[in-house]
Amino acid sequence: MNYKKMFPMFKNNKGIVYLDNSALTFKPYEVIEEGNNFYEKYSISTRTSDSILGIEVAKKIIDSRKIIGNFIDAKLNETLFTSGTTESLNLAISMLSKIIYDGEIILTYFNHNSNIIPFFEQFKNNNCKFIFALDTNDIISKITNKTKIISLSQITNNFNINFDLKKIYEIASKKNIILINDAAQAISHEKVTLKNSDIIAFSSNKIFGPTGMGILAIKENLLEKLSPQKWGGGQVINVKGCNWTSKNDIQKFEPGTLNFAGIFQFKKAIEFISNIGYETINKIEMELANYAYEKLIKVKDLQLASKKGDKIIMFNIKNISSQDVASYLGHNNIYVRSGVFCAHSFTNLKGYDKSYVRLSLSFYNTKTDINKLVKYLKKGEYFDFL
Amino acid sequence: MNYKKMFPMFKNNKGIVYLDNSALTFKPYEVIEEGNNFYEKYSISTRTSDSILGIEVAKKIIDSRKIIGNFIDAKLNETLFTSGTTESLNLAISMLSKIIYDGEIILTYFNHNSNIIPFFEQFKNNNCKFIFALDTNDIISKITNKTKIISLSQITNNFNINFDLKKIYEIASKKNIILINDAAQAISHEKVTLKNSDIIAFSSNKIFGPTGMGILAIKENLLEKLSPQKWGGGQVINVKGCNWTSKNDIQKFEPGTLNFAGIFQFKKAIEFISNIGYETINKIEMELANYAYEKLIKVKDLQLASKKGDKIIMFNIKNISSQDVASYLGHNNIYVRSGVFCAHSFTNLKGYDKSYVRLSLSFYNTKTDINKLVKYLKKGEYFDFL
Repeated sequence: MNYKKMFPMFKNNKGIVYLDNSALTFKPYEVIEEGNNFYEKYSISTRTSDSILGIEVAKKIIDSRKIIGNFIDAKLNETLFTSGTTESLNLAISMLSKIIYDGEIILTYFNHNSNIIPFFEQFKNNNCKFIFALDTNDIISKITNKTKIISLSQITNNFNINFDLKKIYEIASKKNIILINDAAQAISHEKVTLKNSDIIAFSSNKIFGPTGMGILAIKENLLEKLSPQKWGGGQVINVKGCNWTSKNDIQKFEPGTLNFAGIFQFKKAIEFISNIGYETINKIEMELANYAYEKLIKVKDLQLASKKGDKIIMFNIKNISSQDVASYLGHNNIYVRSGVFCAHSFTNLKGYDKSYVRLSLSFYNTKTDINKLVKYLKKGEYFDFL
Repeated sequence: MNYKKMFPMFKNNKGIVYLDNSALTFKPYEVIEEGNNFYEKYSISTRTSDSILGIEVAKKIIDSRKIIGNFIDAKLNETLFTSGTTESLNLAISMLSKIIYDGEIILTYFNHNSNIIPFFEQFKNNNCKFIFALDTNDIISKITNKTKIISLSQITNNFNINFDLKKIYEIASKKNIILINDAAQAISHEKVTLKNSDIIAFSSNKIFGPTGMGILAIKENLLEKLSPQKWGGGQVINVKGCNWTSKNDIQKFEPGTLNFAGIFQFKKAIEFISNIGYETINKIEMELANYAYEKLIKVKDLQLASKKGDKIIMFNIKNISSQDVASYLGHNNIYVRSGVFCAHSFTNLKGYDKSYVRLSLSFYNTKTDINKLVKYLKKGEYFDFL
């Protein structure tokens, strides 16, 4: 099956080899079209509520919330719309910082900065200690009676580390430890579920959906204890002098006008990936990952930093800076990334470089893509494009 | 000139009378099309930087930032992208709460909740007193040596009160008082400029642009004193243990992947309104506002709460709840709003009702729209649609 046909980016950029799917995924026709559908036919605020179109839009927004929530086993009143993973994590961490004091917070060395820095900043005065862990077993071994939060990525955006959330959550939930899953990477590759954590954050942009949209899912019993850390319209019952009364439904966490077009498109993206299915996606990506590994390992002077089967592959070329490699490829219509991918913490670990070339696969990639990449790496004309 | 032809919503919803422009404006074809343009041709993250498309996208984003900033006389490094006015105000107020203590903050009774509640919440422990004012002269009379911030709307979303920002800012800037302009309403009707305030917030959604996009403009000399209150990717130089070093350019205020498609569309919206021009817009809207006033004043049992010439017109029908009026009209394809429009504070004032019907004009409205509205109000079959 030629999945590339579903994505106009391939039609409009002949010969493009796109291997930066951890940053952004291409959008299929039906997702793009749904933005037009909102703007051309339904462009009314949900707050213009009791009207012909207002009722239809409100229904569609609830419908989207249900479908997207259901995709991660979250209920309607557990699924909040945000502008992306970064806002989701910032809001969650900010809300938690108002109820959690005097304890330990376990993070991982491979967390994205957006799952580290908000903790440093929001918990400054909460008398909490940050403990960094390496992997599932290390996390479990570091849990104490003081542990209040564990925050990790189901799949990281760098060394493709998979954390065993089921195992961690079994222990965490018994000890009333809040488990946060930054699912920004996992969501496009494998099942993500609120059954295995208390909080899930992810972006639509990394799952074939629009930019500027995300989800923050929070288990009902936790959400009840939190208060909003963003305020505005749609949230207020009244204001008397310098006091105000808040609504008590999900609206209190979503002040302001929602990104309606984005929500319409996000729903389509979830339906798109659901139709293809994680099983198919995983099969294609695993085959490709193995193929890429076998090919890359044979490239002269290429130092692979990833394991066989990793869908995110990190490497360096001896004596060439990773940015030079990425630039060389980028100017030859091959899109990869260089650096530490906003996960600076892992550079604190021994044995890790300060920068890598990263390629991240999606199900629409093909062996031809890998062959072209390898061809250019073998050519190695790193400075000829300048 | 038939401006309606520029907007597909009118083509796809025959006979629609849309008078809720304060909440959301319709989008012209070219703005909608620009979303497709990004997703179909340029769908690459700006962080996939040194590559054929990465360079083009980064250029387009800078270009958009320049054009949008220039529209309000803000420099490139004074113009931050957000998800909308609500996020802009929340971020600004949160950042200010880290540097301002022990003083007085002047708000107006007609401020939107998003320009009140974040102050109540973020300044809880800052020993600041909130003082509410009515109009330009009242604000000026309430300025003391303790005043640290004045936050208002250049035009409000309720009684269409215009504040004289030039006059207020002349005094405020001499006294080192920070002036915040929530320009969410003003931006689609008249010139908004960073020359008359320190901070400007507005949404793209209310200026013929996409949902889920906004601007936070902050004067350079103030921005220098602020530190980000949202953290994530693209902002960090390094993380050593539990310490981190921040970049020192505008990127530190914009963590995470930006809403690229939204930015592309936002630029088009600004170009669209610039091409028509505020002068033309104001001429059309003023004529319509006067026309609507003359017509509405003759409707039996209609109690007008707005002045002649107001582009936002508030009224009530004797003995009928405002929501019933809005529902009746809404089910007849006439879109207005009822309530207090997220500006609960004005209900604290004597002589104001607890709810109104609101109609808010845009330049694409016509006398035919007003005639249809008035026809239905005269018919007054408020409960027949049920």
